[in-house]
Amino acid sequence: MLVRAFIPAHITAFFFPRFHEDPLKAGSLGAGVNLDRGTNVFVVTEKGVKRHIRVAFNGKPVKKSTARISYSVAEEIIPPEFRGNVEIWQYFDFPNGHGFGNSAGGALGTALALAYAFKNKTLLQASQVAHKHEVINGGGLGDVIAQLHGGIEMRVKAGCPGIGIVDNIFFEDYRVLAIPFGRLSTKEILKGDIIRKIEVNGKQALERLKKKPTPENMMYLAREFAESTGLMEGELLEIARELDRVLRLPSSMVMLGKSIFALLREDEVSGVKEVLSDLSIEKYAICGIYNSRPEVGRWTG
Amino acid sequence: MLVRAFIPAHITAFFFPRFHEDPLKAGSLGAGVNLDRGTNVFVVTEKGVKRHIRVAFNGKPVKKSTARISYSVAEEIIPPEFRGNVEIWQYFDFPNGHGFGNSAGGALGTALALAYAFKNKTLLQASQVAHKHEVINGGGLGDVIAQLHGGIEMRVKAGCPGIGIVDNIFFEDYRVLAIPFGRLSTKEILKGDIIRKIEVNGKQALERLKKKPTPENMMYLAREFAESTGLMEGELLEIARELDRVLRLPSSMVMLGKSIFALLREDEVSGVKEVLSDLSIEKYAICGIYNSRPEVGRWTG
Repeated sequence: MLVRAFIPAHITAFFFPRFHEDPLKAGSLGAGVNLDRGTNVFVVTEKGVKRHIRVAFNGKPVKKSTARISYSVAEEIIPPEFRGNVEIWQYFDFPNGHGFGNSAGGALGTALALAYAFKNKTLLQASQVAHKHEVINGGGLGDVIAQLHGGIEMRVKAGCPGIGIVDNIFFEDYRVLAIPFGRLSTKEILKGDIIRKIEVNGKQALERLKKKPTPENMMYLAREFAESTGLMEGELLEIARELDRVLRLPSSMVMLGKSIFALLREDEVSGVKEVLSDLSIEKYAICGIYNSRPEVGRWTG
Repeated sequence: MLVRAFIPAHITAFFFPRFHEDPLKAGSLGAGVNLDRGTNVFVVTEKGVKRHIRVAFNGKPVKKSTARISYSVAEEIIPPEFRGNVEIWQYFDFPNGHGFGNSAGGALGTALALAYAFKNKTLLQASQVAHKHEVINGGGLGDVIAQLHGGIEMRVKAGCPGIGIVDNIFFEDYRVLAIPFGRLSTKEILKGDIIRKIEVNGKQALERLKKKPTPENMMYLAREFAESTGLMEGELLEIARELDRVLRLPSSMVMLGKSIFALLREDEVSGVKEVLSDLSIEKYAICGIYNSRPEVGRWTG
């Protein structure tokens, strides 16, 4: 049986973490946007005599130590009595570690595709397994639940799906510019001094977005958060300022990656492409907003 | 501006109510299925000098007393300072009062279309307004939150969207047979002696579905609930037994309408049509399962 799950890439606009000893209650609050590109997970199950699980990233098989989260999710969802081969092929549209939620995309895609294949867990039960291993292994705090809801999302209560609460903001006609420049270690930032600023400014931004829940307000708050916390600086800030010259809404930094994103209308696309060309930036994507739950189903090609 | 919202028809398979003086905490627990037919709501907004709201059902304008829920939802979502005309056109694929969630479909469709038009409330905020007026006016307890999630749903915590919790069960290839026979007063049944049985048997059914969350199990539990509570009897039960002869899974009663539903595979469709023809039943629908959130967007025709 071949099952495919599509999980949108998720960009966090602003956030603050909620740590908790119970990983199901840990999470993050804030806001962000889900893209119509992201992670495709294909799961092949075949009965046999021995239980054997394999994971591959972008077509290349990876060791357990490299795909710890996906292996843990698979072990927990595949029924203990199952014997046979399970292959989990994960394909990512964005580079790893750049803030597009690949880790959660792989975890959630694996969980949903396996739950669909084995029909043994519900949507929330499977998503909770993905969330738990993401948190335990430091993959992320809020991506799984955000990706499960799609759209432009606002995390108003922290925790796994079924405990945390995600709201959605109505939007119209926006496209998303996404420019991945480099990796950033979420773990290190969450350990550093900057965490205090993230907590105070993230909380403020969320309160202000709740009062005026629009995509435009989210972008103003995102940029203010990115600059006021000191996370967005140097080259990233310079590029954002160049982009702002041709955009109606401020661009901002992807939390947490060395990446930039912006919401734009169709009539802003050509101006953006010119600026990027002038800056010799070639790797970027202009995507749609993915406004649904993840897709899961039998794959017939 | 013309905005359209599609809200799936929702069939409850089994349930038990949770009354609460706060309508946002009232709701129902249980399970059910959302159909790819249901309620289409078209909202037209036009600025003017006077505030004027009109509601129409299936093309016919209706009085405030007939569409109390929709008018209340509209008054709460349209910004107080708005002046002009707002027309709310609701079209129903199933007859009213037969257990297909038309009331909640109209309320939620109105709420989402208006929130989209005015961009002043989030998805959860708008849905809560729909839930609240449904509960206050006795329209229903669990339809709004079930319709918001789509698919085959399991309400595991009662309340409005953002408070209640809905889980989804994975399914494959099922279609839904829906036969509306007549009206049934939810209010009267919830006041009667039968309520005690509904509470005990509904709770048991939910516990058993949580342990084995499959569409097949839901149908066995639905039928057991329908018969053991005494809700399904007489002609309805006779027709269900006729249908069962050509179905793999038991058919059951729509809660709460004088209506029957069943899950079936493509290869069961012709047998079902024969039985219905033998029984001289002409009004029925064979639909798909609607497995997404409601659709909301600008309508361009």
